[in-house]
Formats: sequence, structure tokens, C-alpha cells
Amino acid sequence: MTTVREASFDLFREQGMTTMFGNPGSTELPMLADFPSDFRYVLGLQEAVVVGMADGFAQASGRTTVANLHTAPGVGNAMGAIFNAQANHSPVLVTAGQQARAQITLQANLTNRDAIRMPHPLVKWSFEPARAEDVPLALAHGAHLASLPPKGPTFVSLPMDDWYAEVDESDAREAIARRVDGRAAADPAAVRVLADRLDAAANPVMVAGPDIDASGAWDDAVALAERQRLPVWATPATGGGRLGFPENHPNFRGVLPPAIGPIGQTLEGHDLILVVGSSVFPYYPFIPGPLLPQGAKLVAITSDPDEAARAPMGDALVADVKLTLEALLADLPESARPAPEPNQGPQEIPPAEPLDSSTVHTALGEVFPDDGIVVLESPASTLALRNQLRLSRPGSYYFSSGGGLGFGLAASVGVQLAQPDRPVVCVLGEGSAQYAITAFWSAVAYKVPVTFLVMRNEEYAILKWFADVEQVSGAPGLDLPALDVAAVAEGYGVKAQRARDRDGVREALERALASSQPELVEVPVAPGMSLF
Amino acid sequence: MTTVREASFDLFREQGMTTMFGNPGSTELPMLADFPSDFRYVLGLQEAVVVGMADGFAQASGRTTVANLHTAPGVGNAMGAIFNAQANHSPVLVTAGQQARAQITLQANLTNRDAIRMPHPLVKWSFEPARAEDVPLALAHGAHLASLPPKGPTFVSLPMDDWYAEVDESDAREAIARRVDGRAAADPAAVRVLADRLDAAANPVMVAGPDIDASGAWDDAVALAERQRLPVWATPATGGGRLGFPENHPNFRGVLPPAIGPIGQTLEGHDLILVVGSSVFPYYPFIPGPLLPQGAKLVAITSDPDEAARAPMGDALVADVKLTLEALLADLPESARPAPEPNQGPQEIPPAEPLDSSTVHTALGEVFPDDGIVVLESPASTLALRNQLRLSRPGSYYFSSGGGLGFGLAASVGVQLAQPDRPVVCVLGEGSAQYAITAFWSAVAYKVPVTFLVMRNEEYAILKWFADVEQVSGAPGLDLPALDVAAVAEGYGVKAQRARDRDGVREALERALASSQPELVEVPVAPGMSLF
Repeated sequence: MTTVREASFDLFREQGMTTMFGNPGSTELPMLADFPSDFRYVLGLQEAVVVGMADGFAQASGRTTVANLHTAPGVGNAMGAIFNAQANHSPVLVTAGQQARAQITLQANLTNRDAIRMPHPLVKWSFEPARAEDVPLALAHGAHLASLPPKGPTFVSLPMDDWYAEVDESDAREAIARRVDGRAAADPAAVRVLADRLDAAANPVMVAGPDIDASGAWDDAVALAERQRLPVWATPATGGGRLGFPENHPNFRGVLPPAIGPIGQTLEGHDLILVVGSSVFPYYPFIPGPLLPQGAKLVAITSDPDEAARAPMGDALVADVKLTLEALLADLPESARPAPEPNQGPQEIPPAEPLDSSTVHTALGEVFPDDGIVVLESPASTLALRNQLRLSRPGSYYFSSGGGLGFGLAASVGVQLAQPDRPVVCVLGEGSAQYAITAFWSAVAYKVPVTFLVMRNEEYAILKWFADVEQVSGAPGLDLPALDVAAVAEGYGVKAQRARDRDGVREALERALASSQPELVEVPVAPGMSLF
Repeated sequence: MTTVREASFDLFREQGMTTMFGNPGSTELPMLADFPSDFRYVLGLQEAVVVGMADGFAQASGRTTVANLHTAPGVGNAMGAIFNAQANHSPVLVTAGQQARAQITLQANLTNRDAIRMPHPLVKWSFEPARAEDVPLALAHGAHLASLPPKGPTFVSLPMDDWYAEVDESDAREAIARRVDGRAAADPAAVRVLADRLDAAANPVMVAGPDIDASGAWDDAVALAERQRLPVWATPATGGGRLGFPENHPNFRGVLPPAIGPIGQTLEGHDLILVVGSSVFPYYPFIPGPLLPQGAKLVAITSDPDEAARAPMGDALVADVKLTLEALLADLPESARPAPEPNQGPQEIPPAEPLDSSTVHTALGEVFPDDGIVVLESPASTLALRNQLRLSRPGSYYFSSGGGLGFGLAASVGVQLAQPDRPVVCVLGEGSAQYAITAFWSAVAYKVPVTFLVMRNEEYAILKWFADVEQVSGAPGLDLPALDVAAVAEGYGVKAQRARDRDGVREALERALASSQPELVEVPVAPGMSLF
């Protein structure tokens, strides 16, 4: 006899899903009973942290990852993190316990009353099996769909009494053994047309987006840029959940601004804009202007049909980014265009007193390991970090591409668990750290040696900057007095250092990076945005 | 010329909604511009805290309260707290900024893409006005509907560029000046029938629920119990978001157990069960048995049509609890039944080493002010607190009746802001404190003198208890080692004391209660549940 629980864990095992993130409640206990010793359960103390850790782990491991939550309120607490996972194209299978079937219709306490609707519109699929014996197949459906393009979260609601039910062994074997592969290259004829357009263009440019890294197309993007002499812009930071191109490469131009008018101006002079692995575009402030420079055409390659459909201009190929770049490279000769003028590297930052975030990031750059990974949620210094660090290896950067806060701190723990041999630096503001603050405890409890670097500016700096843009004055709630993240992190058991000058920052970071425990470095910085 | 912003704030002012809880983002800045000096903005550092504080404030003030969130991810982070507000029948008007109208269709970053669907199924109504000038009417709709029975959260999505638009002054005046009142007594004929059934019953009993307190029917419930010689049970603690009856009253029997079989057994011998202001019933663990004792009938009075409709047994009157109890009292004579045997009061707790939660609650009871308020989220000691404190004044107890965690810490700040003259004690476990931990910062920033009492048992005690009930062993994630809430609270600026024995607890609580600042008392307690 095989139970739902046995078949479900066999499924997870077969699909490589043996690290599970969760915050348990009574409705999840039967699922977790006699937890198999070849699985790892990572406890988060609040559900936003659970899904944030799973999101980071899923992205950095490339594996669909289970986040197990506690019925309706647990899913509720996690909805912001599910928003982020959707925006990040992160394959997270969210599961939640449900009341016993005998008590759903009478809506006993903690019944997830409208379980299927609960996580919408943030999941690709949401389901509660009609019978206990269908649980393994429902979990397989959710796991496979999460991993298919466009990757993203799915949801399965699991009545708590289902785990002991018997399943048909033969049916279960079939469900468990299935493999699905959603990678598909664009129609060769369409690729040929695109290759011809690119080769024939007078002054083409590439815009590199996060799905280059996510699809493993890093080297292909570099090869394409070099062979076709393309200058390369990174898609606006707002949508750059991962990097698409080495930012120390001679062809790299910088990060596109995130508004309509400025993007058009920045791309002035190009006749063909090839967007790879990004939406077109992750605009943020509304600054009107022409969508494209006069005479320019745009073609996007994306694995996300919605990104292709909703774009306000240009053509698109919907297909796997890596396979399509490979096909494009096979069709393209070395271009006779002159190479772009080589990138000048990071801007020199003049000394500042008190420190500004740009200086902190130059110090970080000096000690940052070659194989280091940055998880970034410091809205006031996103561009400063990008500009100073010039991260240039695949899988080196994770950011909340949807703009939701609470990703960084939690995701850094998941990223480090997925990449135990690479040093992870999580860069936070003292404000952004608050949205998933209890992830400090998980980092300590599981000895996850993330280095947390906190910029303390005593304000929501990006909001004050936006207030200027929007000509708003007199808004409350933009200051963060007495928000001592280092003390809170110490409360959770994280060793914290406070650094006040550039040398101190460098030395503190060196110590933290060398530690086998999570450590935090807090740096008071000047208020305001740091763009360079 | 009147703008949307002016008309909307006039509406809030007219409706008495001048305390607003929020966590701002760029999409909310135009709403908050030139924030009027007669309004109070209370910043929460994460959205679960914002809505939790608003929920507590709304319940303790009796006023519909605005919780202002940051587009989709902000609503996402708050969904667990919105679940709680719905379960608590708390009138919270949730608003969220939205991208500028010009950028919604192209789905710029931070567009709330499916704004109306986002907060479902947890709100009564969800809307995004089709035109800027309709914003004040939409806010009026949301505010009124939140306050109408069954009270609960509503949602309005607000495009960020709408606030500067002009409204028709006459239309705005009409919308602003409206009053709606949803209180309605049950059909007098139905009340007469119920009065006759009650008076004719041989051995009737009352079950008191949270809507007695919420509707202001405290004295009516006492008068009914006394006039009809009714023994009174509190509805199961799982659904007891507020108390419905003084727990030191001679007629008070105790708190009903939360499962089908045990409730039936507890009510054995009664021929008529009158449930007032509660669902029937907030069952939790599935322990089957007859829904009612042999021969018993049940009638429920509730203002919530869904509570009336979904109950698995008995009849119901859907109407305002207070007005209906008043009508019932007018129809009822003094009963000739003997008075119930007087309640014996709290059980004596034998000394324990280490302390157990029951002993801590006896110490709390010794120093608890007459006009004190408890906000409770300590799942392992809910019943111990109820049994030891015997709270007996209206508006003295708030609890997350849906079972979601994260309510207590945040709500206590809102309750204290609404009731500045009553001492508020927030009782937490070190685990439950984590779901809204940043509320400590808001308590400090706004000098909200809540006394936090944390039972530290190093585990999810209620889950271990459930694991026994469910015969589950070997589940991970049930222990909470090294979770030092006092240190974290100190990190946020809360003064913390650690007490180790009963006298120490009492003295620490006395000091904290006398303070004009938030203070915390942490007490290590024995593992396990405390039921008495």
C-alpha cells in the first residue's frame, strides 16, 4: 500500500525538490509527519520569509521549490512574496494545508474558504484536488507548470486528512516518473528573418534582461554582442531581477533609465533595438515621450507570452532565450561594423563625509570575491551598486524585479543555501530590511553565512526622490528615525559590526565575508539617492 | 475648484476617519501630499503591521479606519492581516496606490495588474474607479460598506495621478455628507417566537460570541442571562475575537471546547441553546460526534448572513445583536427557573518550576488594572489567560478570531491608540510575535505605551499539542531555539525586562504598566499547553 504522503514525497524526490521551505500550522502536520531524512526543511518565522527564501533558492538552484504555508492566513502573509516570485519568473510550488474534508463545507476555523481563488492573480494555476488520492498528481501538475515558461508560482491546497489516503501504485508511478521540458527555440524562419534584420542594421543595440541569466544564455549573449559589435544596455533596474550581460564588458553601456521619454532618448541613433529576455520595458515613473527613437525598430526575445503581448511597441519572438540566441548565432556572421567604444568602467567617487552609498559600494567592490553573489534591496543605491561593482559572472545578482519589498533579506538566505560555495552579500536599506526581518533568525538557525550590508540613511530615500519628481511636499511617513537594524539583527543572533568610514567598511566586510556564520555590517550613509 | 484629494480628505474628516495607518510608496505620495494637520498618519514598516494596527484601531474605536498600502506588493504583504480583519468583522477601508492611468495598460512596473481581484476573497468589495473624479464616491462606498453588517474590510485601488483632478463640488458635497446606518432589529414577530421558546424551555443556555461586545450589547447580554437564569458559555476561543459576557459573572460557565463532539457533550442536558453574536461554531480540530445533544434545539442571533447560512444546525435571526437583545428583553419576563450554580472562579494553580503560563497569568491577574485591555496571541496559553483573568468589562479583549497569526502585536498598538486612557497588555508567544514583529518600532515611534508580555517556551507549543491529537511524530520546524524576542524588541527601542519567577513577573508587569512608553516583559515558561 502506498499513501498520498509516500507518493508525494517520492514525486518531490524524483523531481529534485528535496529542500522545502515552510512555516507549519496544524493543517500541515500530517504532511510533515515522519519527515524523510533525505529532505531538508527550512523554517521561516513568517510566510513572506518562507516564500522569499524559496524564491531565492529556486532561482539560484534552477529547481522548482516547495514553499509550504498554513492555510488561508499563511497564504495571505505570503502574497507579497508570491507577487515577487511571479515578477521574478521564479518556479515556486506554493502549497498550503486545508481543513479536514469533513469540516470544509461547514467552514470550521482555519478553513481556506475560497482556497483556489486566494492566491490569484499571482499564480499561474491554483487547485484543490477533489479527492485525496489525486494529491500526488495535483502536486506534479503544480511542480511541472511552475517550471514551464514563463516560470512562476503555482498553488495547491491540501486538505489535512488526505495524506493518509491510499493511492493506486501504478498511477502514482506514472505521475512521479514524468519529465516535462518546456524549452523551445523560435521558429527557424523567424530567427533567420531576425538575423537578417540584425546583420543589415546600420547601428543595432542590444538590451539585456534577466531571462538571459535565468535561461543560461550568458555566454550566448556575450558571443552575439561581440560577433555583431553590439553595444549593450541592461534593461531598466526596476525589471532587472538578474543581470543579462557582464557589466565590465567593453560593449556594456550601462543601465537604461526606467521611463518612456528617457529610454527613447538614451537609444537615440539606433535603428534596431534587440531586447533579449526582458519585458519592453519595466517603466516606472511616468515621463512621457516617444516610445522609440525616430526610425528605430524593436524586436524582443522572451519566454513570457504576456511580456510579448503587452509591449506597447515592437515585434517579439516568444521562445526560450538560450536556444533562440544559439540559433541566431548559427545564422549570423561576424559583423563588419566597428566595435563600440570601450566602456570606461566605474565612475570615480569623490570622498564624502558622512559616507555615501557610492563610496560604500566602492569599498564593497574592493573586497568582493570573484565568485560572489549580490542580493540587492537597497532602493536608494541600486544604481550605485550596479555602477561600482560591475558584476560580470552569471548567477551573480538577484533583485526583486516587480518592485515589491521583502525579497532581498529572505531571498539571500535561499540563494546561499542553493549556492553554498559562493559568498553571498545581501545589500539592504534599513527600511527595506523590515519587510522580511525575521529571515535573520533562519540565517542563524541554519548557519547560512550571508554577509548583510545595511545602508542606514534614516529615511525612505527613494520616496523623497520620487516626491521631488512628483512635486509632492508635506507627505508623512518618509523618515525612519531610530531604526537600528544592527541591534535587531543581533537580537536574532546575527553578529553585527558598525562601520563609519571607508576603511572600516572594507575591513568589516572582509571579516564578515571570511566568517562561516551570517554577519551584518551597518553603515550610516548620507540621505538621498546614489546613482553612480 | 475642489480636487479629488480635498474632497477625499473632507470625506474622511466628515466620517471621523482622521487616523490613517500606512506604509507609503511612490504611488501613494500624491495622496499624502500636504497631509492635513488635523489628520494623524501612523507608519508601519511592513504592511501586515499596517493592517493589523488599523484592525485593532477600528475595533477599539468603533470607527472605519483607513489602511493605505503600496500597490500590488503592499496589498500582498497585508493579505494575512486582511484575512484577520475579515474574520474579526473589523471595518477597515484598505486603499492602495496604483500606477498612473497612462501606464496601467502597458503594465509599467508596480502596476497593480489585476487590482480588483487582488484582495479577494478577503474583502466585501473591491474597486478601481474608471475616472479620477469618481475617487471620492468610491472611497465613500468603501467606507460605508466596511461599516455595514457584517462589518469587514473593503478595498479601493487609486491611480496615483487621480489626486489632482477636479471634482464637481456639488456631487462631492452630496457624497461627503451621507450617513448610512445598518443596525436593524430582527422582525418583532420572530423575536416574539424566540422569547416564547426561551421562556418555555426547561433548561436553556446562552453561548456568547464576539458580536455582543462589538455591537455594544454587553449589558443586554448580562440582563438576559440574569432575567432568564441562563448559564452562559463563551463561544470557542478559536472564534472569540472579543468577549461576549463577563467571565467573573456567577452565570458564566467557561469557554466551550472547539470541536463538534466535545461541544455536543458540554451542552448535554440543555433543550434550547441560544447563540448570540457568534458563528455556529468556530470548530477547529475534527473530533466527530452529534452536532447537538439529543433533543436540543439551537437558535443563533448574528449580524452576519454568512454565519447564519453556513451553520450546520439550528435556526438563526440575522439582525443587529444589541437591538435584537433589547427587543427580546422587552418581551421576556423574569424566569421562575432556579439560578445556575454560581461559578467558582479561577482554578488554583500549583507552584511550578520553571514557571508555566498559568502561573504567569495569575501574576498578570494580580496587577491587571480594572480598566485594562488584553490583546492576546499566545496560542499555548489562550485558555489559561481566559481562565485566570476572567475579564469582565466590555472592550477588554481582542483576539484573532480567524486563527491567523500576526494580529496581536500590531493590533495592540492600534487598540492603545484608540483607547489612550486604558492600559493595554499584549500577551504573545515568542513565535507568534514574529508575524508582525516590526510593530515594536511603531509602538516606540508613536510612544504607544503597550505592555508586551511574552511567554517564551522555545517551541510552537500548540503545534506539538496538535501533533499529539493528530498522532503525528517526526515533523520538523516545531522548535524555536534561540528566539530572543526581548533582544529584538530592545533592538527596536522597546525597554525589556526578563522575569524568571512569579514575584519577578508581577513586579516587572507593574513597572511596565506604570510606564508611559512601550515596555516588554519576557518570561521563560515550561513547554506545552496551559489550559487552566
